[in-house]
Amino acid sequence: MTDYRAPLADMQFLLRDVFAAQDFFASMPATAEVSDDLIAAILEEAGKIAENLLAPVNSSGDAEGCHFDKGVVTTPRGFKEAYAAYADGGWPGLTGDVNYGGQGMPKMLSALIEEMMFAANSSFALYTILTTGATLTLNQHGSEELQRRYLPKMYAGIWAGSMCLTEPHAGTDLGMIKTRAVPHADGTYRLTGTKIFITAGEHDLTENIIHLVLAKLPGAPEGPRGISLFLVPKLRVNEDGTLSGESNHVSCGSIEHKMGIKGSATCVMNFEESHAFLVGELNAGLSNMFTMMNYERLSMGLQGNGLADSSYQVASNYAKERLQGRAAGGAIQPAAAADPIIVHPDVRRLLLTMRANILAGRALSLYASSQLDRVKFHPDAAARKRAEQLVALLVPVQKAYCSDRGFESCVMGQQILGGHGYVAEWGLEQNVRDARIAQIYEGANGVQALDLAGRKTVRCNGELLAVLMEDIDAVVETLEANVDMQPYLQAMASAKTAIVSATDCLLRRAEEQPEEIGAASYAYMELMGLTLYAFMWLRMLAAAQRALTAGTGDAGYYDGVIKTGRFFYARLLPQTATLVSTIEAGAETLMAMTAEQF
Amino acid sequence: MTDYRAPLADMQFLLRDVFAAQDFFASMPATAEVSDDLIAAILEEAGKIAENLLAPVNSSGDAEGCHFDKGVVTTPRGFKEAYAAYADGGWPGLTGDVNYGGQGMPKMLSALIEEMMFAANSSFALYTILTTGATLTLNQHGSEELQRRYLPKMYAGIWAGSMCLTEPHAGTDLGMIKTRAVPHADGTYRLTGTKIFITAGEHDLTENIIHLVLAKLPGAPEGPRGISLFLVPKLRVNEDGTLSGESNHVSCGSIEHKMGIKGSATCVMNFEESHAFLVGELNAGLSNMFTMMNYERLSMGLQGNGLADSSYQVASNYAKERLQGRAAGGAIQPAAAADPIIVHPDVRRLLLTMRANILAGRALSLYASSQLDRVKFHPDAAARKRAEQLVALLVPVQKAYCSDRGFESCVMGQQILGGHGYVAEWGLEQNVRDARIAQIYEGANGVQALDLAGRKTVRCNGELLAVLMEDIDAVVETLEANVDMQPYLQAMASAKTAIVSATDCLLRRAEEQPEEIGAASYAYMELMGLTLYAFMWLRMLAAAQRALTAGTGDAGYYDGVIKTGRFFYARLLPQTATLVSTIEAGAETLMAMTAEQF
Repeated sequence: MTDYRAPLADMQFLLRDVFAAQDFFASMPATAEVSDDLIAAILEEAGKIAENLLAPVNSSGDAEGCHFDKGVVTTPRGFKEAYAAYADGGWPGLTGDVNYGGQGMPKMLSALIEEMMFAANSSFALYTILTTGATLTLNQHGSEELQRRYLPKMYAGIWAGSMCLTEPHAGTDLGMIKTRAVPHADGTYRLTGTKIFITAGEHDLTENIIHLVLAKLPGAPEGPRGISLFLVPKLRVNEDGTLSGESNHVSCGSIEHKMGIKGSATCVMNFEESHAFLVGELNAGLSNMFTMMNYERLSMGLQGNGLADSSYQVASNYAKERLQGRAAGGAIQPAAAADPIIVHPDVRRLLLTMRANILAGRALSLYASSQLDRVKFHPDAAARKRAEQLVALLVPVQKAYCSDRGFESCVMGQQILGGHGYVAEWGLEQNVRDARIAQIYEGANGVQALDLAGRKTVRCNGELLAVLMEDIDAVVETLEANVDMQPYLQAMASAKTAIVSATDCLLRRAEEQPEEIGAASYAYMELMGLTLYAFMWLRMLAAAQRALTAGTGDAGYYDGVIKTGRFFYARLLPQTATLVSTIEAGAETLMAMTAEQF
Repeated sequence: MTDYRAPLADMQFLLRDVFAAQDFFASMPATAEVSDDLIAAILEEAGKIAENLLAPVNSSGDAEGCHFDKGVVTTPRGFKEAYAAYADGGWPGLTGDVNYGGQGMPKMLSALIEEMMFAANSSFALYTILTTGATLTLNQHGSEELQRRYLPKMYAGIWAGSMCLTEPHAGTDLGMIKTRAVPHADGTYRLTGTKIFITAGEHDLTENIIHLVLAKLPGAPEGPRGISLFLVPKLRVNEDGTLSGESNHVSCGSIEHKMGIKGSATCVMNFEESHAFLVGELNAGLSNMFTMMNYERLSMGLQGNGLADSSYQVASNYAKERLQGRAAGGAIQPAAAADPIIVHPDVRRLLLTMRANILAGRALSLYASSQLDRVKFHPDAAARKRAEQLVALLVPVQKAYCSDRGFESCVMGQQILGGHGYVAEWGLEQNVRDARIAQIYEGANGVQALDLAGRKTVRCNGELLAVLMEDIDAVVETLEANVDMQPYLQAMASAKTAIVSATDCLLRRAEEQPEEIGAASYAYMELMGLTLYAFMWLRMLAAAQRALTAGTGDAGYYDGVIKTGRFFYARLLPQTATLVSTIEAGAETLMAMTAEQF
């Protein structure tokens, strides 16, 4: 039992002090009413759900897992009740289209809520984000008819959603899918095929499940350009949005036994001549799916960050309470049998690494979310275009870097507890197992890195990075006269130089030899992540300093933020040196081995 | 099912080509008969045990776990039969004292066998190494009487052993233990207390279990200097070594539910007025236990390395078979639906990182083992003393660095399989869970790092490092005229400069402020590990090159070794830059936070 507490103070610091969210929302008509007070009230309520509904069924859900019996999937005890309360509270429609019963709230808000849900119970959170992702796709690409028929019940939490992409022989390479959709006389389709690794493909939380399925028409173009997107309900739906009572021949063949997220049903899904409805244009399925993926990928970074925070909370409390050994400079608590282990520098190194990366990861997630909000709500087309460019650049980095750092933090938290971290009782081993999947699904982190280095950098000749640099420079400019910020500004300037020179190296090498992109990609993603964390820490340090100077709020809190930021700049940012040299090392030593020599 | 294959070719390369083991053994009377042929025969047999007896019950043992019912612990199906075959083969006494039925084989041989057993089935391997560790301690510190009574049956595998150190409030800080041993009129003791996290504390594999237990006498000195070591049999033993039929009031209260090594029983052990026999001098228990720990800690590095190799085997095969996407430079298999993923540079980066660290970790384990063999078998006191110094330096690094790299490799192997790595079917998620414990038990890796930076460096003013440098210089000298080795020699020289300057920095800082040791310790351990891996790669590169020039053996194999070594020097060794800057960053940013600010 991790006894998770919603990190509302940290979230408020970011929204108010760092990102001035109220001003940002006020600048766009669609979000003008989203005030700091409204945000605070919603976050507080969401925090209660995470703390009181989801966290209590987290370790029990892990121990029990999902049940499968002749096609019927039963979620762990307590999930159904928690989902009902979540739906009753109106949460499934939080960011939904107001025309169909949604509440039109921004992503900056829902990102923080997602983080809390993942922190409290990652298995449960997955059922909710799959539905959100499906409604989003339907809302962006589906016909008005489909939206009218499906969105209201999905926003109300009466129906859930799923994404069906992967097949046994086709994961990263979706161009090879075999699922077929055959046109029917009435303008709909009949879809047949098998999908695997389908999160929330089948469960007992809702009366219907609306699957978004990638399939190919007979004679469609080879590869990714022949993929179309279909809506396939588990149970057939009448035109008025009621259940028809007929089966749609969608069945779950089995569920996976996994390392973690055991309360989340990962399903093999079989479709047999199922009634299917085209979403968007024919053969545009993959790009339509990608609009959703920018949201879902952000969720995976949030999962890593949330679980890291959950582990941090347990590990920092443990370190303050566990008495073992003495401080190097002499006993801190001479009357006790030993000092708490938080006196040891190496324990502090672990905790500070966790804390520095959690805060930076959350800030980066908000930064990316604010761009998604701009894309969706900003009245100015040029501003939307610019935000789209930043989304394209930021999402693969946030997904991969935050989930990598999240997993690392979960491992560090477990390490602080020693043997107690390895046994189930404290919950930290579950966090490690649950966090691990975030590095794998929604495009493995290596694929994210390749997306960043290839499509988002080489293919557009570094143009997206230039947009990011404008944002960094704008912040730097406001701080140039600030004496206290000088060391951080200098380090930020070095980090900028490093990423620019690494990008030049990448662009130059890629012209000579296409393998150079993949050879540099992972280190390049990590360098970009580190640079972005440095940018986020620059903003957080400046905001904390402003708040301290203003004398408002909890001085001890802001002082702790500044100390954490100093640690980041002194101890974590210097990793840039190694990453640059790895990028410069090139592809040669990677490609020299023959396949047989592996 | 990982379908593990004993890596005999790699092991032979290290023993023959790199370490010239036969010559080394011939130089010491006690091991003069240990020839290359004998080694090859023993390794081959051990490999068969790992492949045919242990690997087949690895994933089933994980799924089933150990059972606990009213104090009785039952191991998973198949463990009892495997243990019987292991005992029948004479393996428990392989390195044992020949005077009591052992075979007197060197550690360089048993280290490789341990690695294979951990690779095939870590849970099973733990039952065997605990017994080996207990016999070793008894053999080094126990009275002749105790040795005569207990060793023969332990070497024969009829009785097992365990180490009982940790208590609920005392893990790293053993000075705080509460278990009490009261002297009895007959010269023995009555021991009472509770121990936790006792691996193989209770099980059904042998007819008796011989516990080595740390306890304090009434009125013993406070802290670690009041700890004594006792032998406590589960069932009482007559003077002639037969069972007396009486219980010794040793009972298992429960077993832990853990992240991994689920087939290994981790027990709460209760002793109630149990008959106990002093091993070694009173109040010298901790230092006596430490002689054993040098062996056990080496085992944890071997566990990490073995599981890494098991994961590498699965992942490299998967990468050659899984068709997905196309090579960046154009299709490699145009007739197939896609290319195997081994064409991708980033997949190769993962595999090469695994392979480079597995080979270096195995070489480092052999290097440390050869020093243990010198300590035990060398006729010359000065040579033994020098080897003892190297053992003291190498063991904490091998334990921590090999188990860290091992866990990392298991995570990388899992990543290569994507979603298939996260589900239980392929066995790679089990390897991640099983490898994780090696970083925690037998002294968490942070404690190893502190041991290295504090006792093994600062407290002896860098003297042990100087001994290591002599060994490095001796190898470097033999290669100086070798043109092909020049780039590696240059890199090795830089690595040497880095570790020497980092050591100077550590020694200087530690004088000013005791916290500086702990602040630098982890990065210092990593820098030492990386330097040692570079040293091992230097020897492996030179050996492979010699073999290629000589034209003996499999040229493709040696060429693969050289390519892997080139990768290590180009892509992994440059991490030194970041580690040095972390060491130089000092303690200030770690100690600035108040406990409340965490």
